[in-house]
Amino acid sequence: MSRDVPTLVEGARNGRVRDIARLISLIEDGSPEVPALMRALAPTSGRASIIGITGSPGVGKSTTTAALITAMRARGQRVVVLAVDPSSPFSGGALLGDRIRMQQHATDEGVFIRSMASRGHLGGLSATTPQALRVLDAAGCDVVLIETVGVGQSEIEVAAAADTTLVLLAPGMGDSIQAAKAGILEIGDVFVVNKADRDGADSTVRELRNMIALGENPERGWKPPVVKTVASTGEGVDRLVTAIDEHRSWLQASGELEVRRVRRARDEVEALAVAMLRRRLAAGEGSERLSDAAAEVAAGRLDPHTAAARLVEGA
Amino acid sequence: MSRDVPTLVEGARNGRVRDIARLISLIEDGSPEVPALMRALAPTSGRASIIGITGSPGVGKSTTTAALITAMRARGQRVVVLAVDPSSPFSGGALLGDRIRMQQHATDEGVFIRSMASRGHLGGLSATTPQALRVLDAAGCDVVLIETVGVGQSEIEVAAAADTTLVLLAPGMGDSIQAAKAGILEIGDVFVVNKADRDGADSTVRELRNMIALGENPERGWKPPVVKTVASTGEGVDRLVTAIDEHRSWLQASGELEVRRVRRARDEVEALAVAMLRRRLAAGEGSERLSDAAAEVAAGRLDPHTAAARLVEGA
Repeated sequence: MSRDVPTLVEGARNGRVRDIARLISLIEDGSPEVPALMRALAPTSGRASIIGITGSPGVGKSTTTAALITAMRARGQRVVVLAVDPSSPFSGGALLGDRIRMQQHATDEGVFIRSMASRGHLGGLSATTPQALRVLDAAGCDVVLIETVGVGQSEIEVAAAADTTLVLLAPGMGDSIQAAKAGILEIGDVFVVNKADRDGADSTVRELRNMIALGENPERGWKPPVVKTVASTGEGVDRLVTAIDEHRSWLQASGELEVRRVRRARDEVEALAVAMLRRRLAAGEGSERLSDAAAEVAAGRLDPHTAAARLVEGA
Repeated sequence: MSRDVPTLVEGARNGRVRDIARLISLIEDGSPEVPALMRALAPTSGRASIIGITGSPGVGKSTTTAALITAMRARGQRVVVLAVDPSSPFSGGALLGDRIRMQQHATDEGVFIRSMASRGHLGGLSATTPQALRVLDAAGCDVVLIETVGVGQSEIEVAAAADTTLVLLAPGMGDSIQAAKAGILEIGDVFVVNKADRDGADSTVRELRNMIALGENPERGWKPPVVKTVASTGEGVDRLVTAIDEHRSWLQASGELEVRRVRRARDEVEALAVAMLRRRLAAGEGSERLSDAAAEVAAGRLDPHTAAARLVEGA
């Protein structure tokens, strides 16, 4: 190969967009060079502010992302967008390729937009996102916006990867509050009621505030604000940026930023270790042994625990 | 303990509902007796027909489940419903406890309704569901309906556990087709457009049929039908039952049933083996070593791959 990892890392540190993109491709492809890349990147500052943006389809995540880019570029920050496909294990997420691409920012050098697929990697997002974030951090990015299509597990994974998680809702979506019940209340650091010029915005805000008050944990030390926006016109986006800044200040002052980063490192190391063990278990010869065991279990001649224990002993 | 596993298994085989329920509780709690239970259950027939029911909130999954119970009871089948909470890692799913409980069937002895929580078990549903299914199979159930709240990952897990997966949609839900793109097209064996008395039902059916035709895989040998129902009045439920029966006949005639069951056994054995390895990695002393490694990685003194490799060597 003509360009080796150290050269690409050097290029990324100097902000060369092509080198950043190539490093992220190595990560997405699960290249054997990823461990060397991670070793080269280990001594980075962890300076970038990582903001997750999640919510059901149709609430305006892409428009809000675009509005945040505009606001952050206006104060001179270097912004990266990671658009995350949930990458169904069946379709590979290919059908989602038609999403909005935020054309208006495509030629701004301070903005780097990258669509990431997790391509069936073990742990999906949780495996590749922290690695990509380490590249972006090394490249001197100020803000990384992680946008997800917002279905189930990917929301939780985005929250796990982010310093600040924005949960977007829109008025009049029947399932918005029901979805909120299923876990987004716990992951939101800032709630955004977008499309706030529509009927029902105030009642959505009220319902949300009630649910936040009900679920409030005094030990958490941060009460998630609810911000109304009309991202398509920019209305309320300044208030949203202020809320994000306030959350960041709280994270730093309370020590929670450090806590979250250590927790993320723990999750990442554990996921990698489990992946290594799983490879040992199910690759090559292990795969045949696993298939044989499965046939025995399906035929009722062996129970699954005994089969698993035998595989582990032999791994 | 007063009732041991063999006695409970004997009771379950005789159809004693309390014994079935206690065995499933052992599984949910991850009891140390589960391996012994699985050994006792290994020689079972795999006779029960397992039907997964999935779809977004509000499409009428519980009503459809109730209508299917009525239809299947009418032909004398013993029916079990497993209602699956997605069990957010944050809320434990407790907020979802208010769902419909299908009261009208609560006193019918041929119906057993059980809400299952995955309680943060590794692999969630994929770990506990096959074990519960083995209990129900041993107890002589004819049909197991697995109902999920239908968000992201749990849909895929239900499809993986079921012989036949029903994907429910309703007209006029903005995100129905968008959700379909994200993977449900691939998991549906039968599509149901419920609430078909509403405006837009025919166009939803048409859109679905188009998408199915586009994604059609001739090697699959089964073209998923689209059935219109109004589950609340029972309209179309006979056609739905016929579609389920036809899919079952195809599964048996084509050998696909056996293929799916071996694949499920393989997934189950692999999940158990990974869980055993993970326990070895992160429990007790391992947990401390993992925390130390995470602190080093967060501080930039160590890269995550090296940290993971050291943990694996020491496990």
